Amino acid sequence: MTLREEALHMHKIFQGKLESKSKVEVRNAKDLSLAYSPGVAEPCKEIYENPSSVYDYTMKGNMVAVVSDGTAVLGLGNIGPEAALPVMEGKAVLFKSFAGVDAFPICLDSTNVDDIVKAVKLLEPTFGGVNLEDIAAPNCFEIEERLKKELTIPVFHDDQHGTAIVTVAGLVNALKLTGRKMSEIKIVANGAGAAGIAIIKLLHSYGVRDIIMCDSKGAIYEGRPEGMNEVKEAVSKFTNRDRQDGNLAHVIQGADVFIGVSVAGALTEEMIATMNDDPIIFAMANPDPEIMPEKAMAAGAKVVGTGRSDFPNQVNNVLAFPGLFRGALDVRATHINEEMKQAAVEAIAGLISEEELSSDYVIPRPFDPRVAPHVAAAVAKAAMETGVARQRVEPETIKQRTMDLAVVGKNN
Amino acid sequence: MTLREEALHMHKIFQGKLESKSKVEVRNAKDLSLAYSPGVAEPCKEIYENPSSVYDYTMKGNMVAVVSDGTAVLGLGNIGPEAALPVMEGKAVLFKSFAGVDAFPICLDSTNVDDIVKAVKLLEPTFGGVNLEDIAAPNCFEIEERLKKELTIPVFHDDQHGTAIVTVAGLVNALKLTGRKMSEIKIVANGAGAAGIAIIKLLHSYGVRDIIMCDSKGAIYEGRPEGMNEVKEAVSKFTNRDRQDGNLAHVIQGADVFIGVSVAGALTEEMIATMNDDPIIFAMANPDPEIMPEKAMAAGAKVVGTGRSDFPNQVNNVLAFPGLFRGALDVRATHINEEMKQAAVEAIAGLISEEELSSDYVIPRPFDPRVAPHVAAAVAKAAMETGVARQRVEPETIKQRTMDLAVVGKNN
Repeated sequence: MTLREEALHMHKIFQGKLESKSKVEVRNAKDLSLAYSPGVAEPCKEIYENPSSVYDYTMKGNMVAVVSDGTAVLGLGNIGPEAALPVMEGKAVLFKSFAGVDAFPICLDSTNVDDIVKAVKLLEPTFGGVNLEDIAAPNCFEIEERLKKELTIPVFHDDQHGTAIVTVAGLVNALKLTGRKMSEIKIVANGAGAAGIAIIKLLHSYGVRDIIMCDSKGAIYEGRPEGMNEVKEAVSKFTNRDRQDGNLAHVIQGADVFIGVSVAGALTEEMIATMNDDPIIFAMANPDPEIMPEKAMAAGAKVVGTGRSDFPNQVNNVLAFPGLFRGALDVRATHINEEMKQAAVEAIAGLISEEELSSDYVIPRPFDPRVAPHVAAAVAKAAMETGVARQRVEPETIKQRTMDLAVVGKNN
Repeated sequence: MTLREEALHMHKIFQGKLESKSKVEVRNAKDLSLAYSPGVAEPCKEIYENPSSVYDYTMKGNMVAVVSDGTAVLGLGNIGPEAALPVMEGKAVLFKSFAGVDAFPICLDSTNVDDIVKAVKLLEPTFGGVNLEDIAAPNCFEIEERLKKELTIPVFHDDQHGTAIVTVAGLVNALKLTGRKMSEIKIVANGAGAAGIAIIKLLHSYGVRDIIMCDSKGAIYEGRPEGMNEVKEAVSKFTNRDRQDGNLAHVIQGADVFIGVSVAGALTEEMIATMNDDPIIFAMANPDPEIMPEKAMAAGAKVVGTGRSDFPNQVNNVLAFPGLFRGALDVRATHINEEMKQAAVEAIAGLISEEELSSDYVIPRPFDPRVAPHVAAAVAKAAMETGVARQRVEPETIKQRTMDLAVVGKNN
């Protein structure tokens, strides 16, 4: 069977990938009296008296909504909410498999920002967190910003911040390997979509000061007359302070790092040859990267990362979101802040020792069972330290709990 | 432990009662490539090309939203969406346990009709059906009516129609036992809330012509100057055609059947004594019925039903909603119509043979494993016969499938 046939077969025989499951048995009148009327009135009354106990007595505290409007699904584009459902079910499966987080797809029948914000706000009582997924730019920015302000549960757009966390983790290790510092390097990012913007913002918070972002019109600079929008205006305020004009080939000269979230073939061997010594390349266009790893290496790259599982250094979001939400949920965090994202970066990067580091190994592998527990513990610690946690739990306890809950890494 | 302690303990140790579960394993790169990228793109593309295949490749076709605003939860009243969550989780557990229907709680943070209608419409891509739960009258009527018009998946307000189906099933059998016909009897209903209204509507569709409904102001009649609303006006158009005035004690004289969905103590022995011979009493106020069964029997009642599990003839919605949705989902019904509800009534009533019928046994017991399979098959058949089914499935197949999926009635 081809992959296509196998994937369709698997989705069809199971009628999708996700089901609801009861944690309790209901086989007789006694069971019924506890799980439903009259016994269920007791947790209801407790929660009514003490609203925070909803985290004790219900599924809320372990349940994440995977919200999409179906406008930017994988590389397929705007295919609508029904056609996006297999991806959101898959995401929920990954949450559960990698970190024991319950997740549920919420595919919304609207592409209107107000509608989506309103729907998610109305759903807040049911969920402990919100993972936004496959929502096209620029709507995704406004939706996330508004929801972060208006909700008191964590809101996280994985296509932005999940990708950013894993990319920066890879970069942290690539810089160790090549003996450079964040504050000294020049980075050129190609592609000003959701992921690209989030990556350069996170890099900025890491102290990188020399960043140039390119879109299809070339370098973005403050006051550029064409092809700007609100988000690019904001980007232009902290990048390309010399207001360099020109295309990628021009501005990449002398750069230490290339970050591609654009299209296949956007980066050439000639461009790499003009970069600084030992350049670091993250070519994450899917399914075909900006440049194939072997070509990049031949042109002098020291480290190459892609989105693909068949090359070294795969930038896979599954390294971040399961552990990140596990940690946030376990301390009942109200938000996911910059410190928590940075903690996730350090936890991912830190799993590879200096001895193990190599050109082919700056990012842990997706099924490394240490990742989610380490990320969860680090994120929870950062949440507690920055005052967004509603309860205190020892990071070691969270690490152990994540290991217990995850399916990944277990033999049976 | 008291029931209260036991219920709180159970809800706390499991952190609620519902979890998400993966139907597929994700333990290695191959699993990941099928359940998620790149393989998941294949069902996405199929659904984009052929929207109805969302029922083949996703969870939608077996997934019901249990929607509440928390305004009329059990006997607790308007306790809000968070405090309602244990009930909605419990409902989802019953859907799964009794008929293998996946269900998910949607507790909405608004009591505004427009908000609730809008939210559910936005959620339509994700779900195969909508079970409205514990939404106070009169909002529940408008919400259900609007959603039934605007959605193409079944919408069912269980507090109305579930209760109505089971009550009428009990009445069908009680009339057999006492040798009466729907067209000849006089029914007095006390309580003009969601359940009461739905019951008399269903009775009317069964050919009952002599119905009087009472509320706290006494008999409802066309043009009554006080305490009317839109719904009661509608009721007054097909009940109490003689426009009788007066309280329950007055209008119940000569009645064959009393239907109580009101408050404890509303029905007295003296009132029963003024009813026709062998009166039939459904006293469904919770937790304490309008009259206790032993008192009603002593006053001459032939059959007494209540909402309680510690008396015979328990009117328990769990006899209806799991099988009803099972049947509707299995034929991908667009709506739940009157014929499907009547099919559920007949299926429930028909499980008790004429030989088995007795004053103490006009309604099957909640854990009778035959109920959901019979209801599912009958409902599916009615859906196919009335043109609201999107696919044809043999009712016998549905019966067998329901037996296979249900947990109730199995030993292990």
